Amino acid sequence: MLLINATLATMDGETAYGLVEQGAVVLEAERILWAGPAAQLPAEFSSREEIDLEGRVVTPALIDCHTHVVHGGNRAREFEMRLEGASYEEVARAGGGIVSTVAATRAASQEQLLADALSRVDAMIAEGVTTIEIKSGYGLDIENELKMLRAARAVAENRPVRVRTSFLGAHAVPPEYKGRPDAYIDGVCLPALEAAHAEGLVDAVDGFCEGIAFTPDQIARVFDKARALGIPVKLHAEQLSNLGGAKLAASYGALSADHLEYANAEDAAAMAKTGTVAVILPGAFYTLHETAAPPIDAFREQGVAMAVATDCNPGSSPMSSLLLSMNMACTLFRMTPEEALAGVTRNAAKALGLDDAGRIKPGLRADLAIWDIEHPAELAYRIGFNPLWKRIFGGAL
Amino acid sequence: MLLINATLATMDGETAYGLVEQGAVVLEAERILWAGPAAQLPAEFSSREEIDLEGRVVTPALIDCHTHVVHGGNRAREFEMRLEGASYEEVARAGGGIVSTVAATRAASQEQLLADALSRVDAMIAEGVTTIEIKSGYGLDIENELKMLRAARAVAENRPVRVRTSFLGAHAVPPEYKGRPDAYIDGVCLPALEAAHAEGLVDAVDGFCEGIAFTPDQIARVFDKARALGIPVKLHAEQLSNLGGAKLAASYGALSADHLEYANAEDAAAMAKTGTVAVILPGAFYTLHETAAPPIDAFREQGVAMAVATDCNPGSSPMSSLLLSMNMACTLFRMTPEEALAGVTRNAAKALGLDDAGRIKPGLRADLAIWDIEHPAELAYRIGFNPLWKRIFGGAL
Ligand SMILES: [Zn+2]
Ligand SMILES: [Zn+2]
Repeated sequence: MLLINATLATMDGETAYGLVEQGAVVLEAERILWAGPAAQLPAEFSSREEIDLEGRVVTPALIDCHTHVVHGGNRAREFEMRLEGASYEEVARAGGGIVSTVAATRAASQEQLLADALSRVDAMIAEGVTTIEIKSGYGLDIENELKMLRAARAVAENRPVRVRTSFLGAHAVPPEYKGRPDAYIDGVCLPALEAAHAEGLVDAVDGFCEGIAFTPDQIARVFDKARALGIPVKLHAEQLSNLGGAKLAASYGALSADHLEYANAEDAAAMAKTGTVAVILPGAFYTLHETAAPPIDAFREQGVAMAVATDCNPGSSPMSSLLLSMNMACTLFRMTPEEALAGVTRNAAKALGLDDAGRIKPGLRADLAIWDIEHPAELAYRIGFNPLWKRIFGGAL
Repeated sequence: MLLINATLATMDGETAYGLVEQGAVVLEAERILWAGPAAQLPAEFSSREEIDLEGRVVTPALIDCHTHVVHGGNRAREFEMRLEGASYEEVARAGGGIVSTVAATRAASQEQLLADALSRVDAMIAEGVTTIEIKSGYGLDIENELKMLRAARAVAENRPVRVRTSFLGAHAVPPEYKGRPDAYIDGVCLPALEAAHAEGLVDAVDGFCEGIAFTPDQIARVFDKARALGIPVKLHAEQLSNLGGAKLAASYGALSADHLEYANAEDAAAMAKTGTVAVILPGAFYTLHETAAPPIDAFREQGVAMAVATDCNPGSSPMSSLLLSMNMACTLFRMTPEEALAGVTRNAAKALGLDDAGRIKPGLRADLAIWDIEHPAELAYRIGFNPLWKRIFGGAL
């Protein structure tokens, strides 16, 4: 396949957006074979089946690198309750919050979890997403953590999308282990991780390091197990307070540390050293009325790669639009539109440990998004509008 | 047509959402003939063609009562510029802002304006919108104000949607009248209004009362002309400062005063007295990093009806999702999900002077939205997700 008359935002190279005007892209099977200015198209490719994009903008397909799209139920009524003044932590301590989603997730069959997730996945696909990270973490017992991860894998069997799973057993202490987080880690979380890994269900190991969740020491035990099993790690860190999660994650060479509202320049320096990506999640910031913003300037200065994701979850970010996350990253955190686009392509791939996606470059997967826009800045500029024209997944339009 | 097995959020009556479980609705031609609990369905209607909604939620179709969807160009590059620190007013004073949209709107043909608007209108229709208010105000000379209003009328000829136009000649002082706002009002705005009215293009007259736009005295002259022509008025008021616009609007019995971030309890009292609707526009608040919120509590206490709209425009609110406006009204202004839904149905109709829409009630237009949700609170709860199942416009599915 030969795409011509395209404006390429390759997200590769030194120029803004890696922009190529009057560009062409050659695809073969699942890969990008060639990309560049049409004037330099090698003669050997010029006889291929041509698709004239009439000047449309082509970007790498989008990657949502932090989601909880597999979950039971919804928390619309809790949303109403919060509007009467209850805080996220109050709701959590009152037995609402995550616990209600745990109950709904446990009660749901794997088929029901899959069906519910697909409604959200379809919304993502409609916005040009081809890779979705999906976490466990609402089962919180061995069987239900496995059920969530199997539902996550099933997403990729039912839709043209790539799924990367993260085991998030250390998401919250379930009611039956209330006050006994260490017993939960030893008795449930670590055995669940071993069982999920044995079944090939785990691409990364994640945790929630926070006052309402787990301490750095508890997370370290989960990360030690991940290391022993040869699985990369990532961490929900510094979302509501600074407990040293980002530094802990960096010390394990984590793929990413996520949220980071309370991270500081020291944390940024530690992450820069290990190439740990900062995953920015403005949907949760927005929903929780957070006032502390992640240290974007420090990440910039230290050269920490920033990704942007939906954090799609039923409590703190019931958001399924990655385009809207881009706008929020700009509007709420003053990231630039180019940083936002890098955050859902090149840097999102890095946050998932993928080196075959996120840029338009020969050899990489032919995962592309084609947009009815004139300039890539429009993707972050618009709010709640989807200008996708077509999506290409593994070379298929 | 007979809809059965529906959860009706009628937005009528004393209960929350005017909720009717196990409801039925009878439609005949363009009207609602009957609505209520299925158990009370009169026998005469029971033989009609039945559509089983399987428990889905039916609401009045949505009404976006404040938009600028007809406009030329976009301001994505200015969005990038603002992210480097320029304020809205600085951008405006620097000749950017509205002025750049005026230039693009003047340069566009009526057909181009229509085609651009339809891409945004289609996004609204996909979310269950059946009535859209569209303003002029980027032409700022007689011919171009007429061109915008003709394009707005043409929207309703090209899509199954009802359009209400507002003449907004007093939106900004065009470059050729810089420093001479009174000359602009007399020489352009009033004659343009007369010409537009003569052509049947004006359903309401609007203005922008603000330091960067027009004074209350100037607006009053426009409103006097509207009154002489028998056209109802509305006003962009108290958005960036309090100049007394809301009180002025109320003194003319305005349908609505819109934005209102800097309005106070006295303004609310004046609006309550005349039944002037408060149109809440969270998209602009969000985009402009505004910190003053409209006095929602005062509106509640005084019994001022609150509507919610997108303010879809290329500068301060490039947002085309009315569902997202509902979420923002809750998240940013702590309106309740029920207030948000009333704001895009019953109260939006009131803001447009329509008494035949916005509720599910016999005699009203059969404009309905049917949603794949379990409870109407979910509409405001989700962020960037569209659960519309079907839309009914004038009785047609
Ligand atoms: Zn998360
Ligand atoms: Zn407006």
